[in-house]
Amino acid sequence: MEHKHCINSNSDSQIVTVKLKERSYDITIGANLLADPNSFSSLKKASKVMIVTNTTVAALYLDVVQKTIEQLGLEVHSIALEDGENYKNLTAVNDIYSALLVNNFARDSMIVALGGGVVGDIAGFAAASFLRGIKFIQIPTTLLAQVDSSVGGKTGVNHALGKNMIGAFYQPQAVIIDTNTLKTLEKRQIFAGLSEVIKYGAILDKDFFDYLSENIEKLVAVNPEPMIYTIKRCCEIKADVVSQDEKEAGLRGLLNFGHTFGHAIEAFMGYGRWLHGEAIAAGMVMAAHLSSQLGYISLADVKRLIALFKRANLPTFSPDIMKAEQYLPYMKRDKKVLAQKMRLILLKNIGQAYIADDINEEQILTAINSCEPYDRSSHLAINNTFSNNC
Amino acid sequence: MEHKHCINSNSDSQIVTVKLKERSYDITIGANLLADPNSFSSLKKASKVMIVTNTTVAALYLDVVQKTIEQLGLEVHSIALEDGENYKNLTAVNDIYSALLVNNFARDSMIVALGGGVVGDIAGFAAASFLRGIKFIQIPTTLLAQVDSSVGGKTGVNHALGKNMIGAFYQPQAVIIDTNTLKTLEKRQIFAGLSEVIKYGAILDKDFFDYLSENIEKLVAVNPEPMIYTIKRCCEIKADVVSQDEKEAGLRGLLNFGHTFGHAIEAFMGYGRWLHGEAIAAGMVMAAHLSSQLGYISLADVKRLIALFKRANLPTFSPDIMKAEQYLPYMKRDKKVLAQKMRLILLKNIGQAYIADDINEEQILTAINSCEPYDRSSHLAINNTFSNNC
Repeated sequence: MEHKHCINSNSDSQIVTVKLKERSYDITIGANLLADPNSFSSLKKASKVMIVTNTTVAALYLDVVQKTIEQLGLEVHSIALEDGENYKNLTAVNDIYSALLVNNFARDSMIVALGGGVVGDIAGFAAASFLRGIKFIQIPTTLLAQVDSSVGGKTGVNHALGKNMIGAFYQPQAVIIDTNTLKTLEKRQIFAGLSEVIKYGAILDKDFFDYLSENIEKLVAVNPEPMIYTIKRCCEIKADVVSQDEKEAGLRGLLNFGHTFGHAIEAFMGYGRWLHGEAIAAGMVMAAHLSSQLGYISLADVKRLIALFKRANLPTFSPDIMKAEQYLPYMKRDKKVLAQKMRLILLKNIGQAYIADDINEEQILTAINSCEPYDRSSHLAINNTFSNNC
Repeated sequence: MEHKHCINSNSDSQIVTVKLKERSYDITIGANLLADPNSFSSLKKASKVMIVTNTTVAALYLDVVQKTIEQLGLEVHSIALEDGENYKNLTAVNDIYSALLVNNFARDSMIVALGGGVVGDIAGFAAASFLRGIKFIQIPTTLLAQVDSSVGGKTGVNHALGKNMIGAFYQPQAVIIDTNTLKTLEKRQIFAGLSEVIKYGAILDKDFFDYLSENIEKLVAVNPEPMIYTIKRCCEIKADVVSQDEKEAGLRGLLNFGHTFGHAIEAFMGYGRWLHGEAIAAGMVMAAHLSSQLGYISLADVKRLIALFKRANLPTFSPDIMKAEQYLPYMKRDKKVLAQKMRLILLKNIGQAYIADDINEEQILTAINSCEPYDRSSHLAINNTFSNNC
């Protein structure tokens, strides 16, 4: 992992490098990057460029990105997918293949993923599997995608029987994070992104957790300076993990803290009803309770974690229509389950996660039931949505 | 590349190693391998095994393979796809995902591809993309798959707009070639396999081409001894090429000799009407004519190549309903076309291929029109099929 100031026309932008030998790439973080042709230097060798985005993001940023890339003298096409996790499937990938083939895209063409995590995952998998792999870059426009899904090369789509069951490890050529895109992001998406932000502190960096505890309200308000620092720190942590364990043989698995519980919530509720960040916030609370029950993290620290999620307007409870037993079938099917053993990421302390291989069903049920009851009044921002859905 | 005798219960089996560092694997070639548990040692660490096959092969070999693997104490499932290139698409891949998910397959599960090139390509891509990649082994049951498609890690499926447009480079854990499966293979499939066999000699090994010129009738008759030698030699050549250039940056491209013309025939005629081996035999004749027109290979050697294809009952002509101009749109879309230049594999001599980057349309049309007229009487075995299709 490496971080340095970038010397280009945008003097405030910063760079974090994901070190993977010949597949290394830079994450550039700054404001006003989308209008700057220097941001897109990694595209220069492409014969053609296909921007993959969704209808919502297209209305906001497609024009500026397309014009900026065209300034490099490249032929640019675009495809706008339907917006939402419900469309993260093989049909969307096939639509991208068709757009590429109709326009005679070849091996030296490139894909630009412009959007949130769903767009990045779909477009990345299309890049990984078109002509057995063409190059692509990520332009994440949500906080969650900026701090997590755009970095590290996990690509893929959902199957009717499970989330992210189809995919590939496939690294981008570059990640361009323009923090201005957060200005148009709805608040609920900011909160959901902060869930992954808090995760990094909880599992790997106590100092960062303490920083978040001091500054969470500024991040909720999308205050630029702490936000840029926060995104950069998350990218540094993730780049460091991915550089050491690209294919998730061990260390990288720690990034799944809260995810096995969270995926159960997402699948049970129907993808997209609870946002990914919301579901894993609740999942992290459950995993923290389980850690505490096993004698690791103190109950005081569990409460500190819960308090931080609440300040970020994130749910710290199980959906009220979902009983503890209803988590189990989903958790057993989760791809992090090795053979028939239940593998979960737990906390020894704040900033220190570990892989537990031997968790049984009773321990899981107890942890889920340890979550405090649903308190709607404490979740003002997402209250309406939850009320409609639950 | 390496070849050694295998010390196991089947004393006649031979091994060729594909050297790709930590992704190296053995190709085992012999008779009676499917009934021998020793053949399947690479499966031992799997938690579960899914045999992917098609309905035709299932009737012949699924029982024996399933029982042999079960002798290792493994839980074995199977899925039989529809037989044929028409079913080599994302729908088939999705059916495999469903079978894996319904049976709770996890990251330490494995796929066994049992069948010809279509089954191997589909099952390999399913393995590459399920849970971002699980392990798989190849059991090719056609000559073409044994000498070509099962070795080297090219996996994928067709798109409505082009053949093999979707896929991944993904290496198997092992390739098991049981030559007994050729006994049940229809003759036309043997001939089609010999097309790729002749290709190896033509592009990279003059001695092997001479051997084939002396022994082609024995191979047409599936005489065991020369057939085992031939399969082994083809695997050695391919393993050597793949070890040097896994992702087809240069050398591996030579294996596409005849394929750009051949893919045009397959696509124009409708996948599966001309077998792949038949289409590329005609394509190799066209590429040889083009090579000769450019002043490389002698016309005498072009005729030698044509004569060898004829002795193997392979077509050396363009389909009579396909005009030369009708090749061009397909050839321009072929994924070996880099940017807008037409890239083709041509012959300097028998046994010495090269990559030509600067071929124009007129040269291609002349080469196609140089093929001798269709002579039905010289293609007894495939006469009926061709008559029905053309």
